[in-house]
Amino acid sequence: MQLAIVLFERLTALDAIGPYEVLSRVPGLEVVFVGERAGSVRTEVGSLGLSVDATYAEVPRPDVILVPGGPGQNDHMTDGPMRRWLRDADATSTWTTSVCTGSLILAAAGLLDGRRATSHWLSLDGLAAFGAIPAEERVVRDGKYVTAAGVSAGIDMALTMVGEMAGATVAQAVQLGIEYDPHPPYRAGSPRTAPPEVVAVVRGVRDSILN
Amino acid sequence: MQLAIVLFERLTALDAIGPYEVLSRVPGLEVVFVGERAGSVRTEVGSLGLSVDATYAEVPRPDVILVPGGPGQNDHMTDGPMRRWLRDADATSTWTTSVCTGSLILAAAGLLDGRRATSHWLSLDGLAAFGAIPAEERVVRDGKYVTAAGVSAGIDMALTMVGEMAGATVAQAVQLGIEYDPHPPYRAGSPRTAPPEVVAVVRGVRDSILN
Repeated sequence: MQLAIVLFERLTALDAIGPYEVLSRVPGLEVVFVGERAGSVRTEVGSLGLSVDATYAEVPRPDVILVPGGPGQNDHMTDGPMRRWLRDADATSTWTTSVCTGSLILAAAGLLDGRRATSHWLSLDGLAAFGAIPAEERVVRDGKYVTAAGVSAGIDMALTMVGEMAGATVAQAVQLGIEYDPHPPYRAGSPRTAPPEVVAVVRGVRDSILN
Repeated sequence: MQLAIVLFERLTALDAIGPYEVLSRVPGLEVVFVGERAGSVRTEVGSLGLSVDATYAEVPRPDVILVPGGPGQNDHMTDGPMRRWLRDADATSTWTTSVCTGSLILAAAGLLDGRRATSHWLSLDGLAAFGAIPAEERVVRDGKYVTAAGVSAGIDMALTMVGEMAGATVAQAVQLGIEYDPHPPYRAGSPRTAPPEVVAVVRGVRDSILN
């Protein structure tokens, strides 16, 4: 089994590395970081470089595809090398997955037409614009398509996938191995639980970037 | 303010990237990935390369030090470039922190003598051997020293630190930005909650590596 994690400039690091940390621990699953060209990409805030180890052409038929999100997602919403590879690879994949705004890339490529999917809570509307059915859930599965909500949700998605791929005992062993017993010091991880003024701050930052 | 995240061969990726994703969002906090030599290191399972952007000599006085763990931790338990830098940098740091078995490196360098600290649940005994007082908690603060339990605990530690450094509103905005509203599909993230057979599997894997 081969998992291809797509890297591109200005991705959000944890979108890719959360699932990587979980899925790389599954026996028999080879992980390859794939991108338009070998070398490295810089993440969202620029202070982290991640290595691209294989080009799209070198990984034509991964069993599992994972597309992270981040500000750089906007560069891949039209036809180009990533979209062409995604469509080809999706034709034979067992699972096609995304974290955060990675689902907008899948949707824009036409892979989520009429399917339930999720994204970062600030980007759910965007999914509908590309023909998907937005679902306000942390992990959404529709057939072979699995999408996760914002950034950290990729960890939950990956554990769900390990359960499907390798069974509950392996998934639980991975969870215990990474000591994933979360205790956030605040209850602000969702717009449903965060204080309204915090939601306004985050919406404002987003709006100031987009406008 | 400058945060130095230490990279070394065979670190555990999420130990470094979980806190990075949180702390890189703090206004005014510059993040630099530091290591023995510029270039890149490969993580635990070898399929991810992370860029080292500055050598130890180039980052003599970071305000915050973060040491991740992973199998490569074993290479840094004796005197060498990392230990010498840690001791010097710690002399002027505001915070000195670790995730997972990174605390063993800090302890072996003599920085946790007589201090409460935590580590990956499988490595708590090791802390005591190096003079620290092991605490079975997810995030432990003793003075300027903050240590996190295994791998994913670095996210909780980082949010706790943001609250201390920049206040609760910023910390909550970061939490909402990365949609950290965890819903693990299993309750296996701690040896206290995981099924006994799962605990035995993970202990067995560790023992098979060590013996």
